[in-house]
Amino acid sequence: MGYNNWVSQSIMNRRGSAAGKTGKMHTLTEEQQAEFHFTIGPYSKPVLSVAPGDRIVIDTRDAFSGRIKTEADKPSEKIRLPFANPQNGPIMIEGAEPGDALAVHIEDMVPRGEQPRGTCALIPEFGALTGTYYTATLNQPLPEIVRKVLVDETTVHWSDKVKLPYKPHIGTLSCSPEIDSISSLTPDNHGGNMDLPDMGPGTVTYLPVRVPGARLFIGDAHACQGDGEVCGVAVEHASTTTIRVDLVKRWTIEWPRLEAEDFIMAIGSTRPLEDATRIAYRELIRWMVADYGYEQFDAYMMLSQCGRVRLGNFVDPKYTVGAGILKKYLP
Amino acid sequence: MGYNNWVSQSIMNRRGSAAGKTGKMHTLTEEQQAEFHFTIGPYSKPVLSVAPGDRIVIDTRDAFSGRIKTEADKPSEKIRLPFANPQNGPIMIEGAEPGDALAVHIEDMVPRGEQPRGTCALIPEFGALTGTYYTATLNQPLPEIVRKVLVDETTVHWSDKVKLPYKPHIGTLSCSPEIDSISSLTPDNHGGNMDLPDMGPGTVTYLPVRVPGARLFIGDAHACQGDGEVCGVAVEHASTTTIRVDLVKRWTIEWPRLEAEDFIMAIGSTRPLEDATRIAYRELIRWMVADYGYEQFDAYMMLSQCGRVRLGNFVDPKYTVGAGILKKYLP
Amino acid sequence: MGYNNWVSQSIMNRRGSAAGKTGKMHTLTEEQQAEFHFTIGPYSKPVLSVAPGDRIVIDTRDAFSGRIKTEADKPSEKIRLPFANPQNGPIMIEGAEPGDALAVHIEDMVPRGEQPRGTCALIPEFGALTGTYYTATLNQPLPEIVRKVLVDETTVHWSDKVKLPYKPHIGTLSCSPEIDSISSLTPDNHGGNMDLPDMGPGTVTYLPVRVPGARLFIGDAHACQGDGEVCGVAVEHASTTTIRVDLVKRWTIEWPRLEAEDFIMAIGSTRPLEDATRIAYRELIRWMVADYGYEQFDAYMMLSQCGRVRLGNFVDPKYTVGAGILKKYLP
Amino acid sequence: MGYNNWVSQSIMNRRGSAAGKTGKMHTLTEEQQAEFHFTIGPYSKPVLSVAPGDRIVIDTRDAFSGRIKTEADKPSEKIRLPFANPQNGPIMIEGAEPGDALAVHIEDMVPRGEQPRGTCALIPEFGALTGTYYTATLNQPLPEIVRKVLVDETTVHWSDKVKLPYKPHIGTLSCSPEIDSISSLTPDNHGGNMDLPDMGPGTVTYLPVRVPGARLFIGDAHACQGDGEVCGVAVEHASTTTIRVDLVKRWTIEWPRLEAEDFIMAIGSTRPLEDATRIAYRELIRWMVADYGYEQFDAYMMLSQCGRVRLGNFVDPKYTVGAGILKKYLP
Repeated sequence: MGYNNWVSQSIMNRRGSAAGKTGKMHTLTEEQQAEFHFTIGPYSKPVLSVAPGDRIVIDTRDAFSGRIKTEADKPSEKIRLPFANPQNGPIMIEGAEPGDALAVHIEDMVPRGEQPRGTCALIPEFGALTGTYYTATLNQPLPEIVRKVLVDETTVHWSDKVKLPYKPHIGTLSCSPEIDSISSLTPDNHGGNMDLPDMGPGTVTYLPVRVPGARLFIGDAHACQGDGEVCGVAVEHASTTTIRVDLVKRWTIEWPRLEAEDFIMAIGSTRPLEDATRIAYRELIRWMVADYGYEQFDAYMMLSQCGRVRLGNFVDPKYTVGAGILKKYLP
Repeated sequence: MGYNNWVSQSIMNRRGSAAGKTGKMHTLTEEQQAEFHFTIGPYSKPVLSVAPGDRIVIDTRDAFSGRIKTEADKPSEKIRLPFANPQNGPIMIEGAEPGDALAVHIEDMVPRGEQPRGTCALIPEFGALTGTYYTATLNQPLPEIVRKVLVDETTVHWSDKVKLPYKPHIGTLSCSPEIDSISSLTPDNHGGNMDLPDMGPGTVTYLPVRVPGARLFIGDAHACQGDGEVCGVAVEHASTTTIRVDLVKRWTIEWPRLEAEDFIMAIGSTRPLEDATRIAYRELIRWMVADYGYEQFDAYMMLSQCGRVRLGNFVDPKYTVGAGILKKYLP
Repeated sequence: MGYNNWVSQSIMNRRGSAAGKTGKMHTLTEEQQAEFHFTIGPYSKPVLSVAPGDRIVIDTRDAFSGRIKTEADKPSEKIRLPFANPQNGPIMIEGAEPGDALAVHIEDMVPRGEQPRGTCALIPEFGALTGTYYTATLNQPLPEIVRKVLVDETTVHWSDKVKLPYKPHIGTLSCSPEIDSISSLTPDNHGGNMDLPDMGPGTVTYLPVRVPGARLFIGDAHACQGDGEVCGVAVEHASTTTIRVDLVKRWTIEWPRLEAEDFIMAIGSTRPLEDATRIAYRELIRWMVADYGYEQFDAYMMLSQCGRVRLGNFVDPKYTVGAGILKKYLP
Repeated sequence: MGYNNWVSQSIMNRRGSAAGKTGKMHTLTEEQQAEFHFTIGPYSKPVLSVAPGDRIVIDTRDAFSGRIKTEADKPSEKIRLPFANPQNGPIMIEGAEPGDALAVHIEDMVPRGEQPRGTCALIPEFGALTGTYYTATLNQPLPEIVRKVLVDETTVHWSDKVKLPYKPHIGTLSCSPEIDSISSLTPDNHGGNMDLPDMGPGTVTYLPVRVPGARLFIGDAHACQGDGEVCGVAVEHASTTTIRVDLVKRWTIEWPRLEAEDFIMAIGSTRPLEDATRIAYRELIRWMVADYGYEQFDAYMMLSQCGRVRLGNFVDPKYTVGAGILKKYLP
């Protein structure tokens, strides 16, 4: 797992309470989870409590709660909103207080469950290239289509002709908002349904803590995903995801952030898409100013030359964009 | 109260469970309310239970919880988000079930509290003509300014030169979402912070019921408001608001609707503003088709000739638009 | 024509070069126009030259150049883009220079041509409640439908059941940009296809002059139109439109403005709709500051209480919004 | 120039009129160009006529017409809009007719002119993280800052600490619209100011031909640029750009397209940003259906797994997005 070696130099390990030490290993199986959650907030009952530095092996369900077993199973019949995108958690982090940041290192993701494990679908009035609940039109919906896809630890078998690399990521990752409880389909400043392809094994996500204990929720594993998740659905699959968590005390961040071996990224989620991008870039500038010694307008002008934008999704109730910079430009 | 006479012919009275009969009178004073709410959802404790047809006299607080007493009181110091826009409720409606619509007739609003009762303000990074939390910019914020305003039952004394009519409305009106709990600053398909100037005395609002008992929340009285609430704040004031409620059983509506003496209006809330307008117009067309015998494309083309759009706000986390048609065009 | 009496007190008459005096009467018949224009810019050949104070009686064509004569004539077959929305002009205004404003008083509009004169249509991938050229979707287009409508000087005979008042306005009114030539389907800071229902008889529109002679273009008469022109098409008709023009020298305005008997309005056009609304409100504030003695933040906060928003269209390549205030609040 | 070898297998060479043969070499120096253009349309006088297969060595000016020579030269004083972003051309392509596509292979770009050649700037009310002409706010503008930057053929010397690779591209590339003449600051379906970092040496851009002779315009060389060009300005520099052109007869494309060694990309430009992304993805799907044998919904769902989005700019009057797919997934 060479991609994890850089983590010893990450913000997580340099500034976290566990100081790079790995603690206990926990599991969170489907049985332990029992009731999955479709809203992310402070009102649900914790399933687990862990310490900074601890690792957790989590069995996530796919976004359809595993109900789309064949290409004849229609999401519109098997799923009633708002009961899509089940989340594991809440996991309590010992010592977490509002104003801290929770670091989540995704160490590993492997697919699980019966084949074909992967599910893609066209869902009526959902996706970027169709009228939707919000972009309300009078057109007939697109046909409802389900695509079951073989997924193994190296390959997504999209079709006879096209094989895609298995490049998994976590679609939905959150700490609880202070008083709101937000649909697991929606991303916002708490994290949520960001659908950011970078949020996979080997990266660390930092989330703002807004309630005591942080209340971590996680779910929505994707076997692969294109920028924007244009049809509204990735290759959704159940996963066994191993994370390690830590606390960066008194690191008060307003929006989620991500660190990888060679870049850092700030994440914004709202509509329209330009505002999500504005949030991400402004947060990145603030980060460069606070932690890397940049003057804000110098950072602004320099990102105009070397900033990198990743479109997470532009299909959810809010859209997600990451704005990043290579670490080598942060001397 | 001539403006209320038409209500005998309203959908509320023709189709409601109470069939136009007025039931008991309840009060909901500040003392009874005790704890006001800043999130609208299914997790808070009911304060009152009423029957269809009942009337309730409610003491609402202003959006600043009454903490801005002088022009020296800064919102950024007196209010910590998310604790803005306090809501009365939840009020349980006997017999309300998911799939019903709750009718709320605002019978009367009068200002209450010490003078100057009204408060307007420029709040940093809030409002339409400034960079904001979502339209993230690097500009210096506008100055924080508080304007205390005399408000009586006929007049809003804006300045020595300008007097505006007291034309109050309710800014925030909701039934609970099914599982989410949504900030009282945000409008959505449950109602919420719509800031629609039409939602005043003499009109009836219909809200989708999504949980047993409906769980009605109400607050955010405005002494007057322009289209769009451009600076982000109306003339906010504490009020005594009298409503009468009824249930339209099995009238399943997706978004709030409003009925006045001479028009009906569907209400949409999202970003960007064109999508809020699309939602409102599509819902209005669906209403014309379902209840007035229109063919959908005839309704669509006719609204292109006589539809009326009211901009509620374009400053909240989601924007609100009403799309209406005069009743005389609904033969 | 009582609605015209107020014009003697208008900005046009108080500040215009003609000082309220009426000059010569000109005509611009279809024959005189000969070649209609589909792009608004500095490269076309003038058809007429008039002096400030002069009146012009103009025969406008409908937006389909009169080619939709029956309900069997499909726009997609009869019209090839960009040749929609024919404009009369350019009319040169003697003495107009960049930095001036051109005042256009619409004195009168009457329908002309054979019955049924009025045309409404659903055009594939055009309109607010459908995927479009810009809001690109994969849905099947809506059906193409043509509706021919009887129009006389008092009434638009929409259907057997619904008669709408004949309340005409000019959809497209422009001076030339400095060097660009812009499709007659698009509104922008030069005016263009604003589709604003207020721009009818009895009102005065002020347009920025950006080239010597102003180069006035006019067309796109609507017999009536709802807010937003939701299906994309009003009741389009050929008209005889009488205007009187004047120059307000050295009144440099950035966007079009409109004056009516009891209100003034600034007009913005762009996407998304919130930005069009921002432009309109900012221009209105600037106007209140420059000409009515308001301090800008006082104007901003006061418009939050009494501003009025009119949605022109949200179907053209750019959307148009007017933001207005009653004159009685401008002491 | 190894990156050019793949071009022998490009659409340009396989389907172009010149069939991969290289024709004459032309020059277009500043002296030959004489008058640069700030609007892209059919009304300007051609400077050159070339045949399919010909090469042209073009001296482009920087976006400020070379007037920002020191950090004391303010754009707001040296440049009067609309006279920004000067374009070379129009270059007539022999045999080009509406319905063809013009292929432009950028073979080479080198910086030219005196050092420091590169210019970046903060321009008042321009850029993504500030109120602008369209996102109209009342905030004070950001400070006007000019940054002169040393640029050589390998390196952009941003600061003492940060050196960026010289990775040039063409910001503005267009054929003429049919009748409109569009500001060189604006991208649209004719190409224009797309600011797409991929449009550099070694790639081929395909532009729709809408007038006889195509009328090619080119300019706005960037020494490097981040995704989105967030501050509104890249490292602008004068360049010597060598292109080779060809015609793909009767390949009627609606929006520009780009081909590189390992991917193809469709390009959309509009506001808001989600609509630009929708256009780009829909065009990419149409391309996959027409030329690679995909069924449209299969393409749509597959791009949800492997589509790549590049943000060109979100600062111009319209925003630009490219949606691409690796060629290896187009068997």
